[in-house]
Amino acid sequence: MYSETSAPDFGQRRERLLESLEAAGLRFLLITKPVDIYYFTGFRGSAGMLLIGTRRTRLWVDPRYTLQAGEQTSGIEVIEAREGLGQTVAAWLRKRRPPAVGYQDLHLACAELAAIRNKAGRRAGTRWQPVGPMIETLRMVKDPWEAECIRRAGRLTAEVFGEVLPMVRAGARERDLAAELEYRMKRAGADGAAFETIVAGGPRGAWPHARASSHHLQTGELVIFDLGAILSAYAADMTRTIYLGRPSRQARHLYESVTEAQQEAVQSLRPGLSGNDADAVARQALARRKLDQYFKHSTGHGVGLEVHERPRLGRGEQAPMPADCVVTVEPGVYVEGYGGVRIEDTVLVRENGPEILTPASKDNWFTG
Amino acid sequence: MYSETSAPDFGQRRERLLESLEAAGLRFLLITKPVDIYYFTGFRGSAGMLLIGTRRTRLWVDPRYTLQAGEQTSGIEVIEAREGLGQTVAAWLRKRRPPAVGYQDLHLACAELAAIRNKAGRRAGTRWQPVGPMIETLRMVKDPWEAECIRRAGRLTAEVFGEVLPMVRAGARERDLAAELEYRMKRAGADGAAFETIVAGGPRGAWPHARASSHHLQTGELVIFDLGAILSAYAADMTRTIYLGRPSRQARHLYESVTEAQQEAVQSLRPGLSGNDADAVARQALARRKLDQYFKHSTGHGVGLEVHERPRLGRGEQAPMPADCVVTVEPGVYVEGYGGVRIEDTVLVRENGPEILTPASKDNWFTG
Repeated sequence: MYSETSAPDFGQRRERLLESLEAAGLRFLLITKPVDIYYFTGFRGSAGMLLIGTRRTRLWVDPRYTLQAGEQTSGIEVIEAREGLGQTVAAWLRKRRPPAVGYQDLHLACAELAAIRNKAGRRAGTRWQPVGPMIETLRMVKDPWEAECIRRAGRLTAEVFGEVLPMVRAGARERDLAAELEYRMKRAGADGAAFETIVAGGPRGAWPHARASSHHLQTGELVIFDLGAILSAYAADMTRTIYLGRPSRQARHLYESVTEAQQEAVQSLRPGLSGNDADAVARQALARRKLDQYFKHSTGHGVGLEVHERPRLGRGEQAPMPADCVVTVEPGVYVEGYGGVRIEDTVLVRENGPEILTPASKDNWFTG
Repeated sequence: MYSETSAPDFGQRRERLLESLEAAGLRFLLITKPVDIYYFTGFRGSAGMLLIGTRRTRLWVDPRYTLQAGEQTSGIEVIEAREGLGQTVAAWLRKRRPPAVGYQDLHLACAELAAIRNKAGRRAGTRWQPVGPMIETLRMVKDPWEAECIRRAGRLTAEVFGEVLPMVRAGARERDLAAELEYRMKRAGADGAAFETIVAGGPRGAWPHARASSHHLQTGELVIFDLGAILSAYAADMTRTIYLGRPSRQARHLYESVTEAQQEAVQSLRPGLSGNDADAVARQALARRKLDQYFKHSTGHGVGLEVHERPRLGRGEQAPMPADCVVTVEPGVYVEGYGGVRIEDTVLVRENGPEILTPASKDNWFTG
């Protein structure tokens, strides 16, 4: 299936992390976020603690996961923690007394850090160093395997949306359409939905994050569909908006403006562009149509093992995007009491131009 | 629909929290965990910051959520944060200089606390006090509305499992059965699945947290189904195990032993019992059958707005369970290379005895 790409090389990822660690003057990093543990080992359990060191990598799991971790990983030491993960890791550190250990301050809860530090022994002299977005920065750049996973997740998402489109008509219930979309994603091979599928018609479409409700769609409503599959652990994220009936002038104005803004922002994407500037492209396109005051969120976010990751496409994000990052581009307008329009694609930012990974049509947007 | 119970009184919940705060010598608590923000306000967005104070409650949301928060809450002040939630709250605190603010150290990430403290101004003299499981402890006790929500989620879960049971036969694919269960939950009114539905047949059933795979079930396999609906924001959690064909002696021994252990542990539940002692009931029942070494996790956990919450039913949990808490009871045995059996119900711990909230049969457990 992955003819041009080979399976992920978790060992190589750990090597790259060791370079970042060395640059930070660290020999150990404690990784506590499950998705990062997967990224560096292949272990897909919901809990574990991973200690990456210059010589060796150790993964502590609770007894539920001993077998699974053994089968899903290689080249690391899997240790069963019978007395609680944090406790066991801390006891290990207490014995070894490393001079410094990095920790994921963006993820680790204050109480958990305090408990590990106390148990590891404050007298052991270990310095605990927050590493900030060290791993998030590495994960921004997708290797060919990862890009292919997201491409397949995006294709699946678009296909399933196309299958369900004929069911989008007056009388259909939002939650039934959402159930249908999620069912077909899973049948088609998805691990599941990357997030609770949004189907929001009429005035509730003006809530950017409305849930699918028991509302029956009506002629004359704009309906927002926001969905994404997870496939082989990677997410896609896509939004389309459908008008039920023959579009009014207002609906057409909103739809065409958002579609244009979205397309301009997608086309602007290239390595080196900042998230701030990509956001500005979408915002200015809407401003030309006097709709920028209805655009109430940022333009996009990174997508990968998580459906929201780095980089953010929004005001104030000055860092340049790296080549081979994957981001959403999703401008929207939200008119209180009337409804909303949002159009979103997941896009691979390549040296030679953007590649849309969620190839669903934007042209067949009304039913009448 | 909720004939004997009235809608949740969020104001009353805030009053109860203020009592806990007063006992801790605090006049403000910063709540950052979305599910807790819902618990105290009714706001169901994915992000926000809630500052509960003795005089007033303030909820900061980003512009995506302004409309939604206004409609979903009452009796509190909703404030739109345009410059980031943490930043905006910190700026507010910098001006007010409260002597002390409590924070959710079990949830708040180290980096986020540091950012808020820095921005709020270390010179402002505000003392930041971790409150530990203050809210988790309040949430353990379910009011009649909450119990009814979980009861309905449990009934829905059990009904959907009963509908899908006839499809469980040799040749069926694990992921298709999982998709079918989740689809029917959502069609029946669930917000969604409380977690990724597990369908694990044969040797993979020996992984307590296996995912549904593309494996086709075979005669002679034990198949674990672990599923739960979320309904009106509350979760249920249930596991059943089915044998395909006419059970072997080994399968029967495992199944009957686990079922017996589960039933004994359920019957033992009463207010005042510790999680440790409830766990011991299940473990001793399995020890009588010489199966305790195959029971690799704790006996259960609280269920409510989260599918894993307090109290834990496991070794070392000495605190007595309060009346009207809701817990799972889910002993299991896992035999490497062969498969697993787990039986789980969600149970309301009442003064006058346990009430099983996931009423699916355990008797029709084989197909042959």
